[in-house]
Amino acid sequence: MGFEYPYARGVAHLKSSDIRDLMKYAIDPRYISFAGGMPNNRLFPVDEVEEIYRRLPRKEKETAFQYGPTTGYPPLREAVKEYMASKGIPADSHDVMITTGSLQGIYIVSQLFLDPGDTVLAENPTFIGALTLFKSFQARTAGVPMDEHGILPERLEKAFERHPEAKFLYVIPNFHNPAGLIYSPRRRRYLLDFIRKNKLVLLEDDAYNELYFDEADRPLTRPVLSMADPDTARQIIYAGTFSKIFGPGFRLGWLVLPREVFPKAEIVKQSLDACSPNFSQVIANTFMREGYMKAYLERIRPEYRLRRDLILQAMEKHFPPGVRYVRPKGGFYVWVELPDGVPAARVLDYALENGVVFVLGKSFAPDDSLTSAFRLAYSNVDPEQIEPGIRVIGEGIRRAMARAQNPG
Amino acid sequence: MGFEYPYARGVAHLKSSDIRDLMKYAIDPRYISFAGGMPNNRLFPVDEVEEIYRRLPRKEKETAFQYGPTTGYPPLREAVKEYMASKGIPADSHDVMITTGSLQGIYIVSQLFLDPGDTVLAENPTFIGALTLFKSFQARTAGVPMDEHGILPERLEKAFERHPEAKFLYVIPNFHNPAGLIYSPRRRRYLLDFIRKNKLVLLEDDAYNELYFDEADRPLTRPVLSMADPDTARQIIYAGTFSKIFGPGFRLGWLVLPREVFPKAEIVKQSLDACSPNFSQVIANTFMREGYMKAYLERIRPEYRLRRDLILQAMEKHFPPGVRYVRPKGGFYVWVELPDGVPAARVLDYALENGVVFVLGKSFAPDDSLTSAFRLAYSNVDPEQIEPGIRVIGEGIRRAMARAQNPG
Repeated sequence: MGFEYPYARGVAHLKSSDIRDLMKYAIDPRYISFAGGMPNNRLFPVDEVEEIYRRLPRKEKETAFQYGPTTGYPPLREAVKEYMASKGIPADSHDVMITTGSLQGIYIVSQLFLDPGDTVLAENPTFIGALTLFKSFQARTAGVPMDEHGILPERLEKAFERHPEAKFLYVIPNFHNPAGLIYSPRRRRYLLDFIRKNKLVLLEDDAYNELYFDEADRPLTRPVLSMADPDTARQIIYAGTFSKIFGPGFRLGWLVLPREVFPKAEIVKQSLDACSPNFSQVIANTFMREGYMKAYLERIRPEYRLRRDLILQAMEKHFPPGVRYVRPKGGFYVWVELPDGVPAARVLDYALENGVVFVLGKSFAPDDSLTSAFRLAYSNVDPEQIEPGIRVIGEGIRRAMARAQNPG
Repeated sequence: MGFEYPYARGVAHLKSSDIRDLMKYAIDPRYISFAGGMPNNRLFPVDEVEEIYRRLPRKEKETAFQYGPTTGYPPLREAVKEYMASKGIPADSHDVMITTGSLQGIYIVSQLFLDPGDTVLAENPTFIGALTLFKSFQARTAGVPMDEHGILPERLEKAFERHPEAKFLYVIPNFHNPAGLIYSPRRRRYLLDFIRKNKLVLLEDDAYNELYFDEADRPLTRPVLSMADPDTARQIIYAGTFSKIFGPGFRLGWLVLPREVFPKAEIVKQSLDACSPNFSQVIANTFMREGYMKAYLERIRPEYRLRRDLILQAMEKHFPPGVRYVRPKGGFYVWVELPDGVPAARVLDYALENGVVFVLGKSFAPDDSLTSAFRLAYSNVDPEQIEPGIRVIGEGIRRAMARAQNPG
C-alpha cells in the first residue's frame, strides 16, 4: 500500500478560488486591470523610506533586524494607540496589538471564536480574503444584503434569527470592499443597538478609513467602536492596516482588542509567526511619528479622487441605462449592478478578449449569489487607461444585455 | 445577563507559558542573558541593507511596497530553490514557498495535518515555539528522548507503537534547539527507514544549517531530505529560515514541500497573511544573490564559535563534576544536564538573584519532564560577559547539588 498524506478534516476539501486565476491577467501589462484591490505602485513613498532608514540610530537599526515582542514593537504600538485615540477609540477598555497585515488580525479573531461548523454574519458582498479565511476555519458565512447606507437592518435580524449561534458579525463600514459605500451614522448606531441587544461580537474592518476624498466626508469615517458606550465597546474588535496608509509590502496591521481578550489573542499570535516583521515596524514607527504618513496621505487622496472622477465620467459615458452603482466617497472601488438576469460573467468574457480585467460579484458572495454584479478597482490603474478600459466593459455590458433580452 | 465572549473550544484553556516571564529578564541590560535563542544584535548586516535598498531599481522598490504572490516573491523563490538544490534537495519532487518566518512554516504544516486530539511525535527536548504551536491546534506532542547522536531509535519506535495515529514526526537534525547536538549520518538514515516503514510524514526544521563552526563539520549538516530516495522524499517537508542567515526582523522563512502538498499549503498560507512581507523579500533576494549572505555567514561563524569556546572553557572551570553537556559543533546552544534529582529551578533562582538568566529544561519538554536540565544560549551574549555569567551559574549548581544531597 502506498503512502497517503494524512490531511486534517478541514483541509481535504480546500480548493483554490477563481480569483487567483484572474490575478494572472491583473499583473499582465497587456491588460487594463480593474481587478487588484491594491494601492497604486507609482505612489509609494520609496524615497522617504530610504531617508528614514538612513537616519535611524544604529541601535534602532539593530532592533529592526531582531525578534521583537509578540504584541508589537513598543514605540509603534504607542504611536498606533495615540492615532486610535485621535479617532475616539477608548484607551481604557482596549489595547493595540500589531499584526502581520489586517488579514492576520481577522485570522486571530477567527481563531479566538470559531469552531468547525460555526457561523459568521457578514455583509453580502464582503471582502474575499475574509470569506476564504472563515472557510479555512470550516465556518459558514451568512451573507446579509446592503443598500447604499450599509447593512440592511431587517435582513440582518432575519439572518441572526436563522443563525442565533453566530459567533460574530464582520463589517467594513468605511469605503467598503467591494461595495464602495460608506455606512450612514444612523446605520452605525443601529449596529451598536444590534450587538447590545443580541450580545454579539462585532469585528470592524477599517482598512480604508483614511482614504476619504473630501474633507467634508471625513467625520463620516468615525469608527463604530468610537461611538460605543463602555459596555458595548467590550463587544467590538477593530482591525486596522498600514497597507493603505504606507504599503502592503510591509505586512503590518493592528487589532484594537478589549483588554479581557488581549492575552488570549497574544497567545494565538505567538504561534502564528512569533512577531510581526520588526524591520517593517521600526520603519513604520518613524513614518507615522515624523509626519511622513500625513504627507503621504495628502499626496495620495487627490490621486485616488482623480481616478474615481475619471471612472465615474467614463461609466456615465459608456455604460448603458439600467446599470446601477453608488458613487464612492473614498476608497478603491465601484460596485456595479447589472439589470437582473444579465450575467456579469459574460461581460468579463468580452472584457478579457479585449484586454480588460475585473472581478465578478459572485467572488465576494458567500453563496455564489450576485451573478449580475462586479467590482471595479480604480486604485491601481493609470489615469489614461481608465476610459479605454471602461469603454470595453460598457460594450461588453451592452452585448450581455442584448443577449439576455434576445437569447438564442 | 451580561455579555460573555463565545470563545472557541481550543481557546478557553490557552495560557501563556513561563518562558514569556523570563524574557523580561532576557532584555533587561542589568542581567547577563543566556536565555534568548536569537542572533547577536551587534552582528547584523545593517549597513549592507542600506546599500542594497539604495541600489535597487525603482521598479523593484515599488514591488517591495506592494502585495506579492502568496507563495513568495518569484526571484526570491528561485534563489532559495537554487540554494536548496546546492544542498541536494530534489527539485523534481519538491517546490519552495516563502513563509513569514519558519514558525509560520510549521504552522502551515500543522494546519494541513492536525485535527484536535491528534498527536505529533517530536524530540524531547524540542523547540518551544513548535510545542506551543502544536498545543494551539489542540494536538498532543509525544516526546522522544535523544542521545548525543540524535533521537533514540528504540524510544521512537516505542512512542510510535503507543501513538500509531501520529500525524507527523518533527525533528531538528542540525545544531538542535535546545539540545545543541547534530544527528550522526547513521541516525539520519535511520529516520528515512523509519518513515518509509511506518508511512509517516517527517517535518525537518533546519534553522541552524549554516551555523557550523568548522568546515569539516559542514558535510554533516546535509538535510535528511537530500538523502531520501524519490519515494521517501514525498514524505518529507523541510522548513528553512532567514532568521539565522540574515535577521529575524525580516520574518522570512521557507518551506520545501512535496509538489502534491504545495497547492493545499498555498491555500492555507493565503488565509494566514495573504503573502509574506514583500519588502523583506526584495531585500533578502539581493542579499542572497549578490554575495552578501556568504560574506555575512563567513563573518558570523567565527563570532559564534568564539562564544562557544568561551562558554565551554568557563563551564569546564566553574561547573562541578557530575554535570553533563555535549560540545556544540554549531548553532546557538549548550544543553546542560544536572545529576538526577537536582532541580534546575533552584539554579535559576540563584542565577536570577545574581543577575543571570537562562531557560529551564522543562520549558522544552512536552510533559514537564527534564526538571534537572537547562539550556544556555551563547549567541547573543557579549564575550566578556560569558565567564562572569557561567561563574554564577556554576555556584548555583554547586548549591543546588549540596542541598539535594543534604536536604533540610
